[in-house]
Amino acid sequence: MADLINSDVFLAFSTYATIVILKMMFMAPLTGYFRITRKAFSNWEDTAMAKNDPEERKKMLQTNPDVERVRRCHQNDLENIIPFVVIGLLYALTGPDLSTALLHFRVFVASRFIHTVSYVMGLPQPSRGLSWMVGMITTFSMAYRVLTTALLL
Amino acid sequence: MADLINSDVFLAFSTYATIVILKMMFMAPLTGYFRITRKAFSNWEDTAMAKNDPEERKKMLQTNPDVERVRRCHQNDLENIIPFVVIGLLYALTGPDLSTALLHFRVFVASRFIHTVSYVMGLPQPSRGLSWMVGMITTFSMAYRVLTTALLL
Amino acid sequence: MADLINSDVFLAFSTYATIVILKMMFMAPLTGYFRITRKAFSNWEDTAMAKNDPEERKKMLQTNPDVERVRRCHQNDLENIIPFVVIGLLYALTGPDLSTALLHFRVFVASRFIHTVSYVMGLPQPSRGLSWMVGMITTFSMAYRVLTTALLL
Repeated sequence: MADLINSDVFLAFSTYATIVILKMMFMAPLTGYFRITRKAFSNWEDTAMAKNDPEERKKMLQTNPDVERVRRCHQNDLENIIPFVVIGLLYALTGPDLSTALLHFRVFVASRFIHTVSYVMGLPQPSRGLSWMVGMITTFSMAYRVLTTALLL
Repeated sequence: MADLINSDVFLAFSTYATIVILKMMFMAPLTGYFRITRKAFSNWEDTAMAKNDPEERKKMLQTNPDVERVRRCHQNDLENIIPFVVIGLLYALTGPDLSTALLHFRVFVASRFIHTVSYVMGLPQPSRGLSWMVGMITTFSMAYRVLTTALLL
Repeated sequence: MADLINSDVFLAFSTYATIVILKMMFMAPLTGYFRITRKAFSNWEDTAMAKNDPEERKKMLQTNPDVERVRRCHQNDLENIIPFVVIGLLYALTGPDLSTALLHFRVFVASRFIHTVSYVMGLPQPSRGLSWMVGMITTFSMAYRVLTTALLL
């Protein structure tokens, strides 16, 4: 396992993990965009742009379906992308073929981009469900290799 | 610190981290199961199975206590299992005894399985609280070793 | 990339990653403190301290603005600190100067402590917004180095 941190597989993992984490971080400014355009905030101190009119500010402490949709997408990213990063790191250290590893990383990252578009635009099912499942299966496949290669209970 | 990535401790970490991440990922299909059996969805496009009757579909956009309970359990996993994985990885690289490391990993993973059963089944306290606290203390113990071994501020 | 896991940069990363993860974990007991003092719980089994009076217990199943504020702060930590840890680990393995790396780690960790104080105490904006943005920019800067150093698509 020693030199694997120098390997092409590890470089590929670094690249795809960084890309998909950046995608996840992008959900935060997107939430901010919807909060501002929909005037829907969670914190009293965030409503101060309405010129200190307390009535206006109270109205802005509301939930909005567009904001909630982006937040659910962000939450789904946390629940899926972080397991990919953890298991993908351990998988990269088991020394898989570069082509097999690239296949896993590319399929996962593509599935999450499709998932985000499906979720934020509210596309009809099963677009979101399928893209979510493809990502899960990719992570399971890497976990299977980690457990069969590195098992020490 | 160099050869530690080849060590038995690192293999043990890989095994237990993968197992507990898979446990966390299992919360997603469990949420799906409760959403379908309780007919409680968050997204309009997820309600299409009710044969396009708009009245039926609107009723399915509801929250359900069983769904919310599983989601809180999933959230608690995110808040506890990810810190374990991060600190456990750094801890494994500090070169602890295999037996001490295995003790930490086994106690943490066991505590999270007990926590999930306690949460999803709604067992009387302090079953859930105690299992949560055992996991926290295990992670703190590993963090203490990381900070005393690798401190560079 | 090989010896980098022995390097001072990696030790510094281990130190700051552990500190900021411990800070994130501290949000859990803080939530507990507000839940108990505000008598606001999510789970029926958590209300048993009110001496088994069902009326009293039902009232404690409520949401409270102080509890929700701490929970939003915890969620923001998950959304920002975990990307820092993942990208920071890969960044540390690209072999940056120790002084540059320390600057990134210190700025990020300081920004998150300021963010937590701003959020929990509800300080006027832009204190929370600015500290959040400083953390984001620090992580982007490390991601830029990872992608320009280790790119393999």
